[in-house]
Amino acid sequence: MSISIIPGGVTAAKGFTAGGIHCGVRKNRAKRDLAMIVSEKRAAAAAVYTTNLVKGASITVTKRNIADGYAQAVICNSGNANTCNADGVEVSEKMCALAGEALGIPAEDVIVASTGVIGQRLDITPIAAGIPSLVASLGDHSEETAEAIMTTDTVLKQLAVSFDVGGVTCRMGGIAKGSGMIHPNMATMLVFITTDCAIAPAMLQKALSQDVKTTFNMVSVDGDTSTNDMVSVLANGMAGNAVIDAEGEAFDAFAKALNTVTVQLCRSIAADGEGATKLLECRVTGAKDELAAKTAAKSVVCSSLTKAAMFGADANWGRVLCAIGYSGADVDVTRTDVKFVSAAGEVVVCENGAGVDFSEELAKKVLSESEIDIVVAFHEGDGAAVAWGCDLTYDYVKINGDYRT
Amino acid sequence: MSISIIPGGVTAAKGFTAGGIHCGVRKNRAKRDLAMIVSEKRAAAAAVYTTNLVKGASITVTKRNIADGYAQAVICNSGNANTCNADGVEVSEKMCALAGEALGIPAEDVIVASTGVIGQRLDITPIAAGIPSLVASLGDHSEETAEAIMTTDTVLKQLAVSFDVGGVTCRMGGIAKGSGMIHPNMATMLVFITTDCAIAPAMLQKALSQDVKTTFNMVSVDGDTSTNDMVSVLANGMAGNAVIDAEGEAFDAFAKALNTVTVQLCRSIAADGEGATKLLECRVTGAKDELAAKTAAKSVVCSSLTKAAMFGADANWGRVLCAIGYSGADVDVTRTDVKFVSAAGEVVVCENGAGVDFSEELAKKVLSESEIDIVVAFHEGDGAAVAWGCDLTYDYVKINGDYRT
Repeated sequence: MSISIIPGGVTAAKGFTAGGIHCGVRKNRAKRDLAMIVSEKRAAAAAVYTTNLVKGASITVTKRNIADGYAQAVICNSGNANTCNADGVEVSEKMCALAGEALGIPAEDVIVASTGVIGQRLDITPIAAGIPSLVASLGDHSEETAEAIMTTDTVLKQLAVSFDVGGVTCRMGGIAKGSGMIHPNMATMLVFITTDCAIAPAMLQKALSQDVKTTFNMVSVDGDTSTNDMVSVLANGMAGNAVIDAEGEAFDAFAKALNTVTVQLCRSIAADGEGATKLLECRVTGAKDELAAKTAAKSVVCSSLTKAAMFGADANWGRVLCAIGYSGADVDVTRTDVKFVSAAGEVVVCENGAGVDFSEELAKKVLSESEIDIVVAFHEGDGAAVAWGCDLTYDYVKINGDYRT
Repeated sequence: MSISIIPGGVTAAKGFTAGGIHCGVRKNRAKRDLAMIVSEKRAAAAAVYTTNLVKGASITVTKRNIADGYAQAVICNSGNANTCNADGVEVSEKMCALAGEALGIPAEDVIVASTGVIGQRLDITPIAAGIPSLVASLGDHSEETAEAIMTTDTVLKQLAVSFDVGGVTCRMGGIAKGSGMIHPNMATMLVFITTDCAIAPAMLQKALSQDVKTTFNMVSVDGDTSTNDMVSVLANGMAGNAVIDAEGEAFDAFAKALNTVTVQLCRSIAADGEGATKLLECRVTGAKDELAAKTAAKSVVCSSLTKAAMFGADANWGRVLCAIGYSGADVDVTRTDVKFVSAAGEVVVCENGAGVDFSEELAKKVLSESEIDIVVAFHEGDGAAVAWGCDLTYDYVKINGDYRT
């Protein structure tokens, strides 16, 4: 099951082209705002969506379009979420129709996504005008595509891997946007993954649904669960492996490759959280069960006080214990150990629920790194979990204090 | 049932004295750090406590001391929470013993509280040394007492009222500290209330437990539920009314007075949230039931994105709808209306779950006030609720990025 990182992103797999342009949804002409990904052949399609009751119109339309398990293209705009608009579904449908028309495929084979401000009408005019040149630009342009889906992201997020399925080399790649409104328990961001591996739609959905439980559902930037976001995968089968249509070794190889891509994208999203200067990874072991481990880990990366302390490189571990205590996780706080780990070393701060003496100097060094692991051990069982988050900074407030103007 | 605001706080009721001094728990000599409240007579006592699994030692000791329904004094230090310390309970017991000794009352009649950093040993030495002068200073000093329990609070919080029970005038007053780690579903701050009304311990506990459901459990500053906080009431009966020992008109009058004090303290705590520049009040009506209304209202005041938008006076109402959508409340988001109201006027921003045209200029004016109401109507039933919160600002991050140093 060897998996290798390869260059590129969403166009690394055979038969996929992509592109991203500025069409005018955004006023800033320097920022791409319309993205497209196309498969040469109709592909198996799977997706997971936001659990927010308020759902973007694009979610409604995409769900319907991939209900048959297949799709061939993705169209996505940034700058406007097309959510809470009376004509939202109509506009999303129109985006699919225009994309389908330009590509010569049915509108029902198009996945549509929108991200940006909520509650402002999305004008189809610039999108309609832009689609022909977007289609003309399609090629090996994963970076432009990744740029076009970004909102407050500061870093382009893409990754590709190659992996082996029954002796056949397959490729898989993805792009992501995240930054704000990132919170556990939903597909909390836009992630588009493509692969040339042959896999049946039901198995593709199974692999994705399993995977997000320990990846995208364990990332939090600000506790706000977005209305629009989704993770989708297109698998066009052009690698030529025997179609994966049941669990087994091939399915496991696929799941492993998917997990490699998703974990890395999760880390990129958390590290590039709005205003973030640090990636936080909370690793929990020894909980009674996985649920307790996940609940505790998520609560730690969601705690505003812990996040602010990490920003200040302040080893205020009481906030970690506090966040575990109010998380609702069934844990024995009197048997809890906590340590901070980074490239600069590690510092044990709490044993059996009580503080231990530690070097403040070392702690400051450990917490001044850009990736910090908060390692929690409960000594009660085998439950383990990992959650990702980021620090809370002045810039988070700045970015969100006046997002619309 | 007329209730009047009267001057003072925790010493407004007959037979109560109080004081606050600097004893040395804190290094800063200018900040009082030890508070005491004493009743001339043994009083009925009731309290509600944090729901965090990690509990301060003072919580454990206070619970035990008022299990019989009575107490006569309160001792409280700021600067150290005495939580997650191996000798924590011993230190809290010692505080009660020393206070009891100095006052000539049993240690078991003392309510003890601590607030401040978690996980650092609380040295009893400065407290032991300070208690005699604290006792000597006792008098009509509600303000000094309120100051001594403050941590990152910037504003002293106290209030007193007079009310009528069966033709007898009673008084009730309270002091509070809040600021950070303030979150629904527990007694999320330190609040000490005194009254000279005569009421049986069981009825006092009933009134308090009922009241916090719509008051202290509906306040959030940062989503972090503290380990230490409590709301306690001492009722010494010195007003001379017939003891309230059952529900009825007198009980209702008492509950109303209590609610007047607690609502005002809640608003003060939210308005003085760490770094806050604005008090947010989310008022929900027309929900299917009270649970749905409360869940939605709390989610709105807890949303980091909504809070940051309010800081920026940005009418980004989509974030309000988004917070309702992920709250878990059983609501029909397509029938939701939202408006912002303040002293500068009101602006309707969303009707039936969709945006409406509004004047950005007016919205900016409305949202530039220091008290903002976010008014949500669901049109589904009679469920109503109010929740309080504050904006998210640069100063919140500053305060919490380096709290310990």
